[in-house]
Amino acid sequence: MSVMEHGGNLGEARRLFPRAPDLEAAMPWIDLSTGINPWPYPVPAIPPGAWTALPSPDAVRDLEDAAARCYGATSSSCVVATPGTQAAIQWLPHLFPAGTVAVLGPTYAEHLRSWRRAGHQVGETADIEALGAADIAVIVNPNNPDGRLADRDILLRLAAEKHKRGGALIVDESFAEVMPQISLADMAGTPGLVILRSFGKFFGLAGLRLGFVLAEPAFTGTLREAMGPWAVSGEALAIGQAALADILWQNGTRTYLRTARQALDACLAPVMTVAGGTDLYRLVETPNAPLVFQRLGTAGIWVRRFGAQPHWLRFGLPPNEEAYRRLQAALGDPAGPKGRPV
Amino acid sequence: MSVMEHGGNLGEARRLFPRAPDLEAAMPWIDLSTGINPWPYPVPAIPPGAWTALPSPDAVRDLEDAAARCYGATSSSCVVATPGTQAAIQWLPHLFPAGTVAVLGPTYAEHLRSWRRAGHQVGETADIEALGAADIAVIVNPNNPDGRLADRDILLRLAAEKHKRGGALIVDESFAEVMPQISLADMAGTPGLVILRSFGKFFGLAGLRLGFVLAEPAFTGTLREAMGPWAVSGEALAIGQAALADILWQNGTRTYLRTARQALDACLAPVMTVAGGTDLYRLVETPNAPLVFQRLGTAGIWVRRFGAQPHWLRFGLPPNEEAYRRLQAALGDPAGPKGRPV
Repeated sequence: MSVMEHGGNLGEARRLFPRAPDLEAAMPWIDLSTGINPWPYPVPAIPPGAWTALPSPDAVRDLEDAAARCYGATSSSCVVATPGTQAAIQWLPHLFPAGTVAVLGPTYAEHLRSWRRAGHQVGETADIEALGAADIAVIVNPNNPDGRLADRDILLRLAAEKHKRGGALIVDESFAEVMPQISLADMAGTPGLVILRSFGKFFGLAGLRLGFVLAEPAFTGTLREAMGPWAVSGEALAIGQAALADILWQNGTRTYLRTARQALDACLAPVMTVAGGTDLYRLVETPNAPLVFQRLGTAGIWVRRFGAQPHWLRFGLPPNEEAYRRLQAALGDPAGPKGRPV
Repeated sequence: MSVMEHGGNLGEARRLFPRAPDLEAAMPWIDLSTGINPWPYPVPAIPPGAWTALPSPDAVRDLEDAAARCYGATSSSCVVATPGTQAAIQWLPHLFPAGTVAVLGPTYAEHLRSWRRAGHQVGETADIEALGAADIAVIVNPNNPDGRLADRDILLRLAAEKHKRGGALIVDESFAEVMPQISLADMAGTPGLVILRSFGKFFGLAGLRLGFVLAEPAFTGTLREAMGPWAVSGEALAIGQAALADILWQNGTRTYLRTARQALDACLAPVMTVAGGTDLYRLVETPNAPLVFQRLGTAGIWVRRFGAQPHWLRFGLPPNEEAYRRLQAALGDPAGPKGRPV
């Protein structure tokens, strides 16, 4: 089983590297431990009622309409807003009878944890064909951390198979905003298909807690019932609706992230093997990963490491020139021969 | 079983009373359907990182420390923050094995619904002594909508009894901020005692989605695991911490709400029997409740009615002089003889 630490916890970074430059100091920590867009959607003015009033069912419907349009789902009855994708991951295992669950791994570890905690029989497999034997299958697409893509036809076949045995295929599309062409959102409503979308990563507003589940209306209704009324905050409804409708910002951001990712690759590739990823994060493979992790931490750069894959490191996008410069300096001589271990 | 509609849904008000003055018009709807403080805690500037970064475990601990101090719990290990009290109500039934549940009613209907939905055997009783026979007991204290108070010694005895049979006593203190002396928060950590607190009602920020569960550390840990990481938004962590530490505002607000409630009583009492409530809402009893509901709705005033108690209406606090004036006008001649049905 893969153990994948959570990103975004600079408190842990400070405890682990107490002598590294601190947030309070002139050289703040550079947090590359997440796959969150460092150029967030500009938070619009929040109408006072969004803070003070209970979020209205009408406002929820408006947000879900905006999500359906943005993601290309045919009907907003297939969409339910959640307070973050993680909240959906916590609830899903409670919406199915106890059964067998197969997770295509290694991947985001919370899927395994959540199904296991709820009492299902859970296994991880690296072979997509091996998912056929379970009642429930979970695939992260594009995968975190390696960016592996699953074939659309295989996914739809799996959904149909799982539906027949009373289960479902869960497709976690948390990072699909940067490659919308691979999303199954246009098939939302297909029996047995449950799609997770994340708002916070691509829009750079992970603190807001907003995500979506796309599935058959009967299933979105069950999830809505399980989460209860007012699951999503008033400010998430307001900001989410504006951002999901802002196609211009989304298209521009996709281009921007692509460029930023290419710049990151240009930092990493001369000294390590870039094994995959998406435009929001890169996975590198090097036998010296623990050493690189130490060297970066000492320089105040926080990246993601993986307990079960000690040769892996994952890098988010550096937010500015200065961060690229510090990353390059910490990685060592970028002019050295390609593949040279750091 | 009592059916208690949710408040705060002005969309429903507009559909039901299409000719009433609308929000867009000069005379907006007056929403008295909730028990939310209409004078909210002033939302401080949100640090940008609260929107953009995943909420850190350190920030969650800081908030729970602030809640423990504010509520008078002896240790913050007994406190877990939730995205609203409702979120806790949705999760609690999944943290106990299937059993018998007794709810002291009539009360907030979501308790009954939530335990039932999760497969427990649930009954409602009006007699606190009848709660003894169940594995789990649920008491809202002060009660919504009638303000009924439960005796502290009886509650502690019930918690001990429930603990012995592997269950718990759930005490929903969503409205206890206006009478902190009745709270059991100082006993948080007592085996078998699970206390719910609401942030949004007293602080007037219901859209933010923030609440707390106070219980034994083992139980708060289980709930934390069930909800998963980043359950509470970054802005709720920031605003909650500031508001819970602002004792001056809290004390001033308690006095203010008491005065506003007395003014509301002065509107209601001449024409209907005020049967109870708290400083955040009043319950009236009148055989003409359906007529009063219609009359108020037509005048653009939205109050809470109760399916199973057609003679009840619940009034939140009018937010300003104009609202008091319109309420008084809609209720009819306040100079008429006391008790005269409207």
